[in-house]
Amino acid sequence: MKRITIYDVAKEADVSLATVSRVINDSNVVREDTRLRVQEAIKKLGYKPNAIAQGLALSKTTTVSIVMSEKLFAYNAKILNGLMDVAKIYNYNIMFHTTSKGISRMQDVIESIIKSRVDGVILFNDNFSQEEMEVLNDYQIPTVVVGSRIEDNGIETVGNVYINFEQLAYELTNRYFERGIDDISLVEDKLNMSTMQQLKAGMERAFKENGKEFTKYISYDETYKSSYAFLTEYFKTHKPSKVVVTLRDSQAIAMMNAGTEAGYTVPDDAELICVLNSKYLMMTRPNVSTYNVPEYDMGAVAMRLLTKMLVNDESVKNNNKINMSYNYMPRQTTKD
Amino acid sequence: MKRITIYDVAKEADVSLATVSRVINDSNVVREDTRLRVQEAIKKLGYKPNAIAQGLALSKTTTVSIVMSEKLFAYNAKILNGLMDVAKIYNYNIMFHTTSKGISRMQDVIESIIKSRVDGVILFNDNFSQEEMEVLNDYQIPTVVVGSRIEDNGIETVGNVYINFEQLAYELTNRYFERGIDDISLVEDKLNMSTMQQLKAGMERAFKENGKEFTKYISYDETYKSSYAFLTEYFKTHKPSKVVVTLRDSQAIAMMNAGTEAGYTVPDDAELICVLNSKYLMMTRPNVSTYNVPEYDMGAVAMRLLTKMLVNDESVKNNNKINMSYNYMPRQTTKD
Repeated sequence: MKRITIYDVAKEADVSLATVSRVINDSNVVREDTRLRVQEAIKKLGYKPNAIAQGLALSKTTTVSIVMSEKLFAYNAKILNGLMDVAKIYNYNIMFHTTSKGISRMQDVIESIIKSRVDGVILFNDNFSQEEMEVLNDYQIPTVVVGSRIEDNGIETVGNVYINFEQLAYELTNRYFERGIDDISLVEDKLNMSTMQQLKAGMERAFKENGKEFTKYISYDETYKSSYAFLTEYFKTHKPSKVVVTLRDSQAIAMMNAGTEAGYTVPDDAELICVLNSKYLMMTRPNVSTYNVPEYDMGAVAMRLLTKMLVNDESVKNNNKINMSYNYMPRQTTKD
Repeated sequence: MKRITIYDVAKEADVSLATVSRVINDSNVVREDTRLRVQEAIKKLGYKPNAIAQGLALSKTTTVSIVMSEKLFAYNAKILNGLMDVAKIYNYNIMFHTTSKGISRMQDVIESIIKSRVDGVILFNDNFSQEEMEVLNDYQIPTVVVGSRIEDNGIETVGNVYINFEQLAYELTNRYFERGIDDISLVEDKLNMSTMQQLKAGMERAFKENGKEFTKYISYDETYKSSYAFLTEYFKTHKPSKVVVTLRDSQAIAMMNAGTEAGYTVPDDAELICVLNSKYLMMTRPNVSTYNVPEYDMGAVAMRLLTKMLVNDESVKNNNKINMSYNYMPRQTTKD
């Protein structure tokens, strides 16, 4: 008898692999009707989730390295969950590497990856240089970069699963131009400079197309405490912009607390948008407007792409850059 | 003597890492003069590219498995940082395993650990049963459990780096008894039941010693959204206790938001303590009182303990249960 796999369930329910995995995992981002359809398919086929590992245990073990910055652990949790779930489905071993200032540099990690002869690599963006990626390419180690977009440099063995942050910032800026607002600030996040550069580029493009210049790029320290202290000082002599955009939740909340305590009201005096969503944005009053980014899916898709690259699947040969969708989620810190 | 790396060669020859790698790999896209310069540098420094493989054969690489629950990834980030930094110092390979409901059970992870013949294991608490730990013990795999205290069951190969949550809750409760307050609630966290049981036991001990009975153990859903919804309903018919204790930040903030919106004031109507600290507890108004727990140190100490267990260090033979200190950090949600 043919062993029932998660693929059969996905096919039967007409949903993606990631969706089946999410239903099994009790994730609450699945629509109720989808969940029911998946559960029916599981029942109908007699699928048993734990049969996966048993079935695959006979074949050769594939080992994949995941590399990320220590400082971004907490922020990358959902992407990692997606990566790990799909890795588990394929029975991959995961070698975990972290980079941290002063303790482990990316170049040491690359060397360790080459030495341990892993089959493939998942890199979170912002951890590596072009040069280091070329080394992995020279050793013919299939690599997928997850997070933001990398330069298309013709490196065939490097896939990319990304959010187009440049386009996101471009659209955001134009939305405000349409309302006649051009007083927009972007708050720097030093932990994530490649994403910041893409957001900045998108804003600059929108300003330029409207015959203006984007100037309000606010740079300050990376932690909540210091950014809160900085902004408390800042608001003694400055007014907030009409629109403030931050990358991470802690910067958005620092902005809101410091601004409110300086006598400004969100969203009346300043609208606030935090690009990366987190549950904490729903815990503030008012709730912070944000973007819905499919983080879990990004991880799941990245690992799935790597599995295809590992077997030299023709379908991904010239098709290994995957642009993930996002959507704007206005809440209480914006007027639109 | 410092080990010569590919980076030293690149520096010496004044070329990129990628170029050195191409020369080593006999790629023909390198210009002849560059190739010669790189080869000279290799010779001068005594760099041995193939030493990697030879080295692996002679001195065995130590591989350690880290096992944690997917759902607690974000919460364990600092402990993981401590683990990874010390692992890096010892040049360990880290195999990363996660457990997640329906997709990977602990028993599958254990099986995979045994199969891949890792040298040692770090387990986060709440991921395993006594039985599973005994399996690791049977295979003589040194294991360190990090987080809360495990039963002392005479399993020699299992170390433990922990916070004594029972004692913490006992002291907390007695502090309120001294102020004449015994209306204390403890809010359940389903993601972390072994820690919850220890907190509950500590409260029960304090109540019992004072001739009373602890009854206010509040059980509800694990996510912020559902707990906020639950509490909003709850406060329509109930008053909050004089003192509310939660384990994680999202539960504390749910409590504060729902309570405030129901017309109660923190700390006047209800004092609030969140046992596990996070930066988000400083972003609320008022700031939430908490405990300072040395999370990074717990990870670092756990990995260091494992390194000693791996070499059968005598000093840890009967001394591998390490009780980490904590201290109370009153802020604005408590009156003391």
